[in-house]
Amino acid sequence: MNRPLILVSNDDGITSQGIFNLITVMKEIGEVIVVAPDSPQSGMGHAITVGETLRLEESKLFEGVTAYECSGTPADCVKMARHFLLKDKRQPDVVVSGINHGSNTSISVLYSGTMSAAIEGAIEGTPAIGFSLADFSHDADFSHTHEFIKKIVVQVLQKGLPKGTALNVNFPPKRNEPLKGIRVCRQANAKWVEDFVERHDPNGRRYFWMTGKFVNFDKGEDNDEWAIANNYVSVVPCQFDLTAYATIPVLNEEWEIL
Amino acid sequence: MNRPLILVSNDDGITSQGIFNLITVMKEIGEVIVVAPDSPQSGMGHAITVGETLRLEESKLFEGVTAYECSGTPADCVKMARHFLLKDKRQPDVVVSGINHGSNTSISVLYSGTMSAAIEGAIEGTPAIGFSLADFSHDADFSHTHEFIKKIVVQVLQKGLPKGTALNVNFPPKRNEPLKGIRVCRQANAKWVEDFVERHDPNGRRYFWMTGKFVNFDKGEDNDEWAIANNYVSVVPCQFDLTAYATIPVLNEEWEIL
Repeated sequence: MNRPLILVSNDDGITSQGIFNLITVMKEIGEVIVVAPDSPQSGMGHAITVGETLRLEESKLFEGVTAYECSGTPADCVKMARHFLLKDKRQPDVVVSGINHGSNTSISVLYSGTMSAAIEGAIEGTPAIGFSLADFSHDADFSHTHEFIKKIVVQVLQKGLPKGTALNVNFPPKRNEPLKGIRVCRQANAKWVEDFVERHDPNGRRYFWMTGKFVNFDKGEDNDEWAIANNYVSVVPCQFDLTAYATIPVLNEEWEIL
Repeated sequence: MNRPLILVSNDDGITSQGIFNLITVMKEIGEVIVVAPDSPQSGMGHAITVGETLRLEESKLFEGVTAYECSGTPADCVKMARHFLLKDKRQPDVVVSGINHGSNTSISVLYSGTMSAAIEGAIEGTPAIGFSLADFSHDADFSHTHEFIKKIVVQVLQKGLPKGTALNVNFPPKRNEPLKGIRVCRQANAKWVEDFVERHDPNGRRYFWMTGKFVNFDKGEDNDEWAIANNYVSVVPCQFDLTAYATIPVLNEEWEIL
């Protein structure tokens, strides 16, 4: 049997420690192709490049791995892999994205470039997983994630994933005690409350830095925030059909304009 | 009773015909505040500005309307409205976004800056609606949308929307016959198949234009693509909880690594 073909992308850019760690683990499982942004794309959500050009250059960063850096977003990277580099060729058996420097739990999944690469994979019908570590530092310790990433990817390769879903996997920061295991979770009910810090440039014109604090409204124990806080790996299955099905009959019943 | 306060944004930028049409209709309903991007932001998905500064300048484009142009994404615009301009003030009764030049049906909802502004409103707990017209031309005729936009916004102001949802409203292009009415729909099962057109710059370095065709797999009549093709206005309730709840028990049962 062929070794599985694994497409790797991320949103922190091709030179980040997170993607280096992910590639290291993926090389133990299968044949790896990397298409990742040539610069950091954090917070890009599911952006794609419209009305502008894209660059794609081969990269020699990773020993024994075919890799490309792309000027576009994480979603662009997966599209270029699928519809240009691998056009009419063998398709990936799994798409993995990350490891993101910083958590993508709860509402952050919407803003996450890491997850947009995974969801783009799922749209193409390929099992896909985004990995994030709840530690923003550039020299974050990823060592405790390796064993679990390998287990999860192998499991997904064996069992597949239901159509229309991708996994959002988050790891707690490395603590003194080992990780307690994996929890399948729902997205926690939380949001960001922004604060805009006003400054003035040398010409006296004002500009802003967006800062924010994360506010968790969720009291449950079945969500990703709880899992991370309690030293579990959280796995949230995500869907790209955004339809709020329960609301359809509500509108059909209540609205007087139909 | 106070007139409702309506926050207007979009992704085509503050000078587009679409937002001008939307503001014209909203002025008939309530007090309007506009915070819109200072340049086109199509395809930005739910991107936010991370690690870069933001500008916000007052705009005199719209008579009798308080308006601001922002250097950020549509999601940034709604965040700046909520957490800077209206901080500790009366909050909007409804957030409206658009009218987008081009359809945001089906999978396009993920890539849509128009819908990210609406979803950002919903995250803040405000009823929110994104409006799009299935006509990309700059001089598109929006006249047939006005009556329906007014009806939908008034209905949402009267009835509210279930927590955690925003509406994705799409209009067919103007045809010879009048619109047939409003249909509450689900997101159609369709995707974009990209094609990358390769060119070379004057220095001989290659670059790409991303093009694509929309492929509809959906045979149903209860989805937004069907509605638009049949001259109905489509209304899809969307949620920002991406959890694929049905997949949670599947993973809990099948996975051997939990």
